[in-house]
Amino acid sequence: MKDIRQNELKAVSLPQLKEICDRLREEIFCTVSVCGGHLSSNLGVVELTVALHRVFDFPRDKIVFDVGHQCYAHKLLSGRRKQFQTLRKEGGISGFPKRSESEYDCYDTGHAGTAISAALGIAKARDLKREKFSVIAFVGDGSFNNGLVFEALNSLKILGTNVLIILNDNGMSISPTVGGTHDVLSELKEGNAVSDDVKLFERFGLSYEGVINGNDLDALLPALERAREQLNSTSVLLHVSTKKGLGYSFCEQAPLETHGVSPFGKRAEQSEYSAALGEELTALAANEKKIVAVTAAMTDSLGLRNFFQTYPERAFDVGICEEHASVLCAALAAEGMKPYYAIYSTFLQRAFDEIIHDVCGQNLPVTFCIDRAGITGADGETHQGIFDLSYLAMIPNLTVAVPKDIGEFRSMLRLSASFQKPLAIRYPRKGTDSTPKPVEIGKFEILHNTVSDVILFAAGENCIRLADELHTRALREEMDFTIVNARFLKPLDEELLASRKEKYVITLEDNVLIGGFGDAINRFYLNSGKQIANFGYKDAFIPHGEINSLSAKFGLNGEEIYRRIRDFYARG
Amino acid sequence: MKDIRQNELKAVSLPQLKEICDRLREEIFCTVSVCGGHLSSNLGVVELTVALHRVFDFPRDKIVFDVGHQCYAHKLLSGRRKQFQTLRKEGGISGFPKRSESEYDCYDTGHAGTAISAALGIAKARDLKREKFSVIAFVGDGSFNNGLVFEALNSLKILGTNVLIILNDNGMSISPTVGGTHDVLSELKEGNAVSDDVKLFERFGLSYEGVINGNDLDALLPALERAREQLNSTSVLLHVSTKKGLGYSFCEQAPLETHGVSPFGKRAEQSEYSAALGEELTALAANEKKIVAVTAAMTDSLGLRNFFQTYPERAFDVGICEEHASVLCAALAAEGMKPYYAIYSTFLQRAFDEIIHDVCGQNLPVTFCIDRAGITGADGETHQGIFDLSYLAMIPNLTVAVPKDIGEFRSMLRLSASFQKPLAIRYPRKGTDSTPKPVEIGKFEILHNTVSDVILFAAGENCIRLADELHTRALREEMDFTIVNARFLKPLDEELLASRKEKYVITLEDNVLIGGFGDAINRFYLNSGKQIANFGYKDAFIPHGEINSLSAKFGLNGEEIYRRIRDFYARG
Repeated sequence: MKDIRQNELKAVSLPQLKEICDRLREEIFCTVSVCGGHLSSNLGVVELTVALHRVFDFPRDKIVFDVGHQCYAHKLLSGRRKQFQTLRKEGGISGFPKRSESEYDCYDTGHAGTAISAALGIAKARDLKREKFSVIAFVGDGSFNNGLVFEALNSLKILGTNVLIILNDNGMSISPTVGGTHDVLSELKEGNAVSDDVKLFERFGLSYEGVINGNDLDALLPALERAREQLNSTSVLLHVSTKKGLGYSFCEQAPLETHGVSPFGKRAEQSEYSAALGEELTALAANEKKIVAVTAAMTDSLGLRNFFQTYPERAFDVGICEEHASVLCAALAAEGMKPYYAIYSTFLQRAFDEIIHDVCGQNLPVTFCIDRAGITGADGETHQGIFDLSYLAMIPNLTVAVPKDIGEFRSMLRLSASFQKPLAIRYPRKGTDSTPKPVEIGKFEILHNTVSDVILFAAGENCIRLADELHTRALREEMDFTIVNARFLKPLDEELLASRKEKYVITLEDNVLIGGFGDAINRFYLNSGKQIANFGYKDAFIPHGEINSLSAKFGLNGEEIYRRIRDFYARG
Repeated sequence: MKDIRQNELKAVSLPQLKEICDRLREEIFCTVSVCGGHLSSNLGVVELTVALHRVFDFPRDKIVFDVGHQCYAHKLLSGRRKQFQTLRKEGGISGFPKRSESEYDCYDTGHAGTAISAALGIAKARDLKREKFSVIAFVGDGSFNNGLVFEALNSLKILGTNVLIILNDNGMSISPTVGGTHDVLSELKEGNAVSDDVKLFERFGLSYEGVINGNDLDALLPALERAREQLNSTSVLLHVSTKKGLGYSFCEQAPLETHGVSPFGKRAEQSEYSAALGEELTALAANEKKIVAVTAAMTDSLGLRNFFQTYPERAFDVGICEEHASVLCAALAAEGMKPYYAIYSTFLQRAFDEIIHDVCGQNLPVTFCIDRAGITGADGETHQGIFDLSYLAMIPNLTVAVPKDIGEFRSMLRLSASFQKPLAIRYPRKGTDSTPKPVEIGKFEILHNTVSDVILFAAGENCIRLADELHTRALREEMDFTIVNARFLKPLDEELLASRKEKYVITLEDNVLIGGFGDAINRFYLNSGKQIANFGYKDAFIPHGEINSLSAKFGLNGEEIYRRIRDFYARG
């Protein structure tokens, strides 16, 4: 497929435009089948993106994609066709909008709900600079549950600037969209009660237009033309209905399973922590009626589908509302329930204040099951789970656990059932299963004990694996060192730490070094005379790429760590 | 005033009930005039609270106060009349609801927007436990702008449980309430367009009732009775209009100024950082048209009233929407503007994800002016600004500045105008003014240089003052040590740190020790052979009390630090 130029898109006939859509769809499908990526969300918005590029004048006009996993057609239409085959690969183009990649990407996204706020900021800056262009926020219906979207809508009149909000309604927010907002949107789609809701939108400063079939260029083009005109006098909400996965029947039928996909034909070799979460929690809930599970729109990928089906009365997917989910858990715990809040590491950042203010401030027994910790790979900066150890360690009353493998994760979950305080368990997506052995809060595990002057503390499975590899290599060179599974960042195993006589200490963590595990060890061994080397991620945002490669590049480099071990060993 | 018993409240005549209201109002006024506290917000809800206690059966029924600065009458009516004179004093009762204080307080609050989520969690737990009682969320109209409130409303139907939401509409959220939601509420208050909005509420699963005069017991009592009945079949939104400050004309006329007050007759001896922010920013904006200021409902107490009046087109109070404000600033900066986001330390926790994801992820020149850092005193746990150094230090691309006094704060602001990256400046409420001297990013200042084996690094005015006191005392005992103004937590002044030969290092910060300034110094001096002592706040929530007393109690104890200096000095 050759590059499609902007002016070509504006000049061609409608049938040719439809052909372009077909070609884009094919290109997206083929590339995602090789590179992995967000499939069904991108397939659904091809016509909408083509229509936007036909009617608007990018990059002079600006578009902000909420979350951003629907920007592939936009990338293909903005001079990135050639690079598109490098999608999500290290050094290749990102699966999300990136200012650093193209002037057609005016604002970086990744987390839900930011687009309208961002569009308002861009539009307000435009007004203040006395410039003229259109600003578009492209938002999925799933994000419309998010509090941040509401905060932005609330300030439309305060800011007094005009933006076009495209509400891309496919009824899904990875999981099917839920809640009151969804019901309002459904009514609108069914043509009911339009007048009430439309008036409501108007009171917020929005002219409502819809519902337009977003997969039909004949309907879309005039609607967008009208909206562009209206922007001279008001902000516009254009409600567009699209079919997620359109064009490929297996995507249309399974939009949830094909939302984000791995390269086709590749099978996972490791197990998933999420499966263990689902199994353990479902089993625990059979005996403990107080257990409830709460998710924020990612139920399946967190492993909880079966729990939700088995205990529907004790399972709540509240949509993309990470903050609300956290407060809800705190209150459930305040009334004697035993809530488990499962969420990805990066998304829990949204609930930082509520972890402090609601859960830990009241010392309530909420268990946070934090998936996708560490480097997650192909999604890049906005999806790496590399800050959690730091932002959790600083919170009073919180116990922070980092299992060494899936078996230990299972033990921690079993332990959690009778634990009466806030608990965070953080783990990567994939790992090794093992037979669960009892775990005690705040107790490390010595994995290999030897008489040597070097001791290595590793937090979490990725670091334990790296330690094992280094140890195997060291043994071949007739070096030996002690390896400790530092499975609690908080409380630390002070007894074990105080008892160790080794002069040289190495710490490993798949988290930024600032404020993490290494800092805690440094603090404990302050003035001890021990020589310490901390390995973890440096103070930087980590882009997309292959997990192991990125990990080495950003601070967990086996060669470098090995050199330090050898150096320490030689001095011992 | 003698204690009012629950059953008395239920038995007395309406005129007697009104008398009780008068007595409560007097009690609140007198106590606040001595202890300081939230005055006008509490005066406005006396009748509403009395009516709730008459109609509902606390503590069997549960009430969650959003934010919580309207719970004084509730405290007086729930067996805490005697302790009320200890309001906000160290060891006395809190100005906010506290589970640890009374069984009548079922959920702790302090930050805005949590009450409906919490009420839903409590109600859901009730249903699961097959218990029967009513759950009430008492929420001000200001909080109705907050995204968290919207997330909770969105999940009413998902959770399928019934709560009573009292919307206490006084038109204020400390600052006057703003935005689309406010306009909708205003229309309702004026009796317009009720049908549209009411239907909208119904679609979210709420029966709307209102508007009731919340200062009129004759109207309130039957309305609450009806609402209590309705709760059997639906959640209810009871829209109540109250007059902030009612009963004291100077409070009614100046609800903003009398929202939170100091003990009457006391005058501040120190200057306020907020005044300097207002002066500097207003002056800078005269020459730099790109400067804009954004606040989240606290414009006056952040010192920006004059800026907002002078540059209304470049000043945005978006209401209690900390997250939206952060994204808005990022987008304004992405389009070349120079945004300043002024906010209290504790409230910025709400925007943690957006600081990472939107501002620093895109490396955009947003300046965060973070007021009320460190221990803030009488408001207690939920208002201490003791986590910011830790949650900011871990974020890549962010420069973190900690001025030593108000003059230096002015210099930092002047410097910020040409700084092209994200910048956070954190400062306490009060401090000392001085002549601004030039400041360079990442450069410490040696305040006192001497030949000694002890060096002390202090971050921020509170710690600089403590260092000075210790130094004066040390000189009297013929000890001397070097004092460094560590005015940048990030980047550290690595050149200065590397050049210092002192064997003994002391760090002071008014922040939790975990992940803060001391940890950064420990990391820098790792394996240097230096002996280090870190002083800052221990890993605990700090309750209400007097700032200096709490500070000493929780980790910045002058005696303890002095002993360490003497010990170090003796060994040097």
